Amino acid sequence: MSVESPLFWPAKFEGDTLFVLDETLLPEKIRYVKVKNVAQAVKVIRDMKTRAFGQFLVVLSAFLLVLASNKKSNDKVLVAQLEAAALALNKSRPTFPFAEVTSMVVGWAKKCLAEGVDVKSSLEKNIQGFLMAIRGRRLERVRKLAEALKSHASILTHCNVSGELAMAVAICKAEGKELKVFATETRPYFQGAKLTAWELRAVGVHITLVADNAVATLLSQGKVNAVVIGSDRNCANGDIANKIGSYQIAVVAKEFGVPVYVLTQPSKGIATGQDIPIEIRDEKELLVFQGRRIAPKGVKGFYPGFDVVFSELITQAIPINVQ
Amino acid sequence: MSVESPLFWPAKFEGDTLFVLDETLLPEKIRYVKVKNVAQAVKVIRDMKTRAFGQFLVVLSAFLLVLASNKKSNDKVLVAQLEAAALALNKSRPTFPFAEVTSMVVGWAKKCLAEGVDVKSSLEKNIQGFLMAIRGRRLERVRKLAEALKSHASILTHCNVSGELAMAVAICKAEGKELKVFATETRPYFQGAKLTAWELRAVGVHITLVADNAVATLLSQGKVNAVVIGSDRNCANGDIANKIGSYQIAVVAKEFGVPVYVLTQPSKGIATGQDIPIEIRDEKELLVFQGRRIAPKGVKGFYPGFDVVFSELITQAIPINVQ
Repeated sequence: MSVESPLFWPAKFEGDTLFVLDETLLPEKIRYVKVKNVAQAVKVIRDMKTRAFGQFLVVLSAFLLVLASNKKSNDKVLVAQLEAAALALNKSRPTFPFAEVTSMVVGWAKKCLAEGVDVKSSLEKNIQGFLMAIRGRRLERVRKLAEALKSHASILTHCNVSGELAMAVAICKAEGKELKVFATETRPYFQGAKLTAWELRAVGVHITLVADNAVATLLSQGKVNAVVIGSDRNCANGDIANKIGSYQIAVVAKEFGVPVYVLTQPSKGIATGQDIPIEIRDEKELLVFQGRRIAPKGVKGFYPGFDVVFSELITQAIPINVQ
Repeated sequence: MSVESPLFWPAKFEGDTLFVLDETLLPEKIRYVKVKNVAQAVKVIRDMKTRAFGQFLVVLSAFLLVLASNKKSNDKVLVAQLEAAALALNKSRPTFPFAEVTSMVVGWAKKCLAEGVDVKSSLEKNIQGFLMAIRGRRLERVRKLAEALKSHASILTHCNVSGELAMAVAICKAEGKELKVFATETRPYFQGAKLTAWELRAVGVHITLVADNAVATLLSQGKVNAVVIGSDRNCANGDIANKIGSYQIAVVAKEFGVPVYVLTQPSKGIATGQDIPIEIRDEKELLVFQGRRIAPKGVKGFYPGFDVVFSELITQAIPINVQ
C-alpha cells in the first residue's frame, strides 16, 4: 500500500505527451487525458479534469510542450510562443495565480534570450528543476502537517488537498498515532466523496463521509478536533481563497474553538482576500447531476467556485517553504 | 396561479383512501401514494415520501383510516386498535413528537369510552375539526411570516417549509413588496432543489438555488438579509431541531448579523435541544444518488437527519397560535 496517492502528482510525461489524471472520472475510473499542446492544457484546466496542485503541474508542463514542439525555430520565435502560451494559461480560470508561474517561466526565457543562452535546453532544465523542488517542498509540508495533526484524534477536511492529507495521516499512523478523518462530500463537485474519500481509503485511513450540512454537528459535539483545508489563492495578509464552503466551516470552527490548519503557498501577488476574483462557474454544474437536472427547469443557480477564509479564522498556516 | 403549493396540504382523502403526495418524485412527477392502513402510513413516513407537516397530516389521518376500517366492533376493541396505531406511528421516526399528537387522539377516544359516547363518530369529528383548526392556524402563521419578511429584500431558506414561505412571499408580492429568495439545495435529500425551488417558482417567486456550501458567501456579502427555516421539533426553552445544516446556517447568520426567523409549533414535551433524539439515517441516502454510489465502496457515511438550533441563535420564532 503506497502512501502516495495518484492525486499527489497527477500529471506525468510519457515522451512528448503529458498524461493528466481525469479527476472527474474518479473514483470509478483511473484514466489519464492526453495533453499535447497549450490549447489542450487550457481545456483540461477549464473543464476541471484536474484542479488544485494538478493545475499548476499542467501550467508548468504546458511550457515543456511548447519547447518540445518547437524543433528548430529561432529563440525569438520560441519566446513569443511561450508568451502566447502564458496568456492563454492565465485566462483559463480567474481565481488562480497562474500568472505568477507563467511570468516566472517567461522571465527565464527572456533572460536566456538576452544572455544568448539556448532557450530550449536551458528552460527545460529550469522547469524540470523547479518541479522537482516543488515536489521536495510539498513532502516537507506533509511532514509539518503530520506534526500538527499528531496532537489531535479526529480531523475534518473539505474538498481535496491533493494527496497531502492522505500522506500526513499515513505518516502519523506509521509513527503510532492513528487518526480518524471525516470528509465533507463538497458539493457541487463532490471532490470530498470522489477524491478525498477515495485516496484516504486507499492508504488505509478510517474515513467517514458527511454532507456539507453536517459540519456544525461534528464540531459542536467534539466528533472532530481539527479542520484541515488547502488554499487555492494566498494573500500577502494571510487571507486565503479555497473551495466554496471553506469560509463557513472556518466560521463554525471558530464558534466551537476547533483549530483550522491551512496548507498555503505564500504569495505576494494579491494584498487581501477582498481582492481575490471569485470564479462564478456555470449553474449547470450545480443544477445537473449525472446528466439529470435536480431542480425544475427555469430555476436559476448561483455557483461561486470559491470563498475567502480571512486570516483571523486560520489557526495555523502550513506553508510551502519558499526560499 | 395559486399561491397554495401542493406541499401546504400534501395528503387528502378520497373515500376511505388517503392520497399522500410522494415528495421523493418531485419535481419531475406529481404523484400520490395510496395509504389504506396504519402500516402503509408508517411506511410513507419512514421512507420520507412525505415529511415535515405532511407527516403530521398522515399521523392524524391514519387514525381516520383505523376508524373507517372498523365497521362494527365494539368501542373497547376500537380503542385498543387506536392505541396500537399510536404505538406504531410513534416509532416511525424518532426525532418527531408524534406521541404528542397520538396521545391526544387516544385520550379523546378513552374519554368517549369512559363517558359512553360513540367513539367512531365522535373521534372522526374531533380529528376533522382539529385538522381544520391547524389549517387556519398555519394560514395565520403565513400572515405573520409575511409581515416579518416585508422589511427585507432577499431571503435564504433551507430545506422546505411546506408551502408557507411560498405563500408568505406571494402575499408580500401582492402587497407591493417583491422579495428574492435563495434556497440551499439541502443535501443529501435535495429538498431545497426539488421542493422549495419548485414550489416557489410555481407561485412566481424569483428563486435562485445554491449549494449548501455557499451560505457564508451569501450572508457575508449582503446578498441575503434574512434566513427563514422551519422546525421539526420544538423545546420548552425555545431550542428547535430542524433539517441538518440549519445549525451552521444559524451560526453563520449570527456571525454576519443576519436575522433568523423560525416557524415553530410550541411544545412542552421536551425541555431543551440537548434532549432531542437525533435520527441517524441510513448512510446509503448520503452515499448513493440516483442509484449510483458517489463515494467508493467501503467508505462509511454519517448522516444525522437533523441538528439543533439553540434559542440564542433564533432572532424571532413565528409560532403556530396554540390556544
